[in-house]
Amino acid sequence: MNPLDASALLNDLKWTADGLVPAIVQDVETKDVLMMAWMDETAVRHTLRTGQTHFYSRSRRAAWHKGETSGHVQHVESVAVDCDGDVLLVGVRQVGGACHEGYRSCFFRRVNADGRLEVIAEPVFRAEDVYGPGVAKG
Amino acid sequence: MNPLDASALLNDLKWTADGLVPAIVQDVETKDVLMMAWMDETAVRHTLRTGQTHFYSRSRRAAWHKGETSGHVQHVESVAVDCDGDVLLVGVRQVGGACHEGYRSCFFRRVNADGRLEVIAEPVFRAEDVYGPGVAKG
Repeated sequence: MNPLDASALLNDLKWTADGLVPAIVQDVETKDVLMMAWMDETAVRHTLRTGQTHFYSRSRRAAWHKGETSGHVQHVESVAVDCDGDVLLVGVRQVGGACHEGYRSCFFRRVNADGRLEVIAEPVFRAEDVYGPGVAKG
Repeated sequence: MNPLDASALLNDLKWTADGLVPAIVQDVETKDVLMMAWMDETAVRHTLRTGQTHFYSRSRRAAWHKGETSGHVQHVESVAVDCDGDVLLVGVRQVGGACHEGYRSCFFRRVNADGRLEVIAEPVFRAEDVYGPGVAKG
């Protein structure tokens, strides 16, 4: 995606009381949903300007450039907004894996026929190789 | 999906301060993301027991059986949870359209090359035919 000014999009967004909007990240090739994270106004601006996803980490209370630590950046291909203007859907080309636990998608567990959670994917990288022994997101 | 007890899933979920968890709804056939809405514990239980999506409407502060008014129910095929246990991904077979504005997906607007929002889909039903002149979700 070419660098874009976010003003028109920002005008249409409705934010939580904390000034955030949820962003669903979808792989444009497989159409798998990779993750959901939160963006503040700055993250939306950076995402559209740089063409890589930026978020706001609620736990760390800080800006977060996805892939900054791991190299697993997300190249943005499209940004859609829902009817209410309070959710973003970001289409990306994912480098490596989206999940800090080593999986391509954060949704690697599914409820099985017994109602239990079952891991349904294989890891694509070893989290400790990428983040070191203390796993931190990125 | 057969009726399932939600206890194992509920044990693994982390809720917002309001007791909610965001649920991304994805079409299992096209893999399009249809919508995102919020579930409370009751909605999660009803969704797994009945095999149709139930949500909690924050604006109406009430339980919400998707499709109750419109007939546009969502038949649940799969329920996945993310690594942090704070987002659900629900795979469905959608009857009609997910969006109360008449579109198959709520994400019918996309940022175009000029940074402006552009409608990228055709409606699949007339909202006023389904909901009457005053459009209410359902």
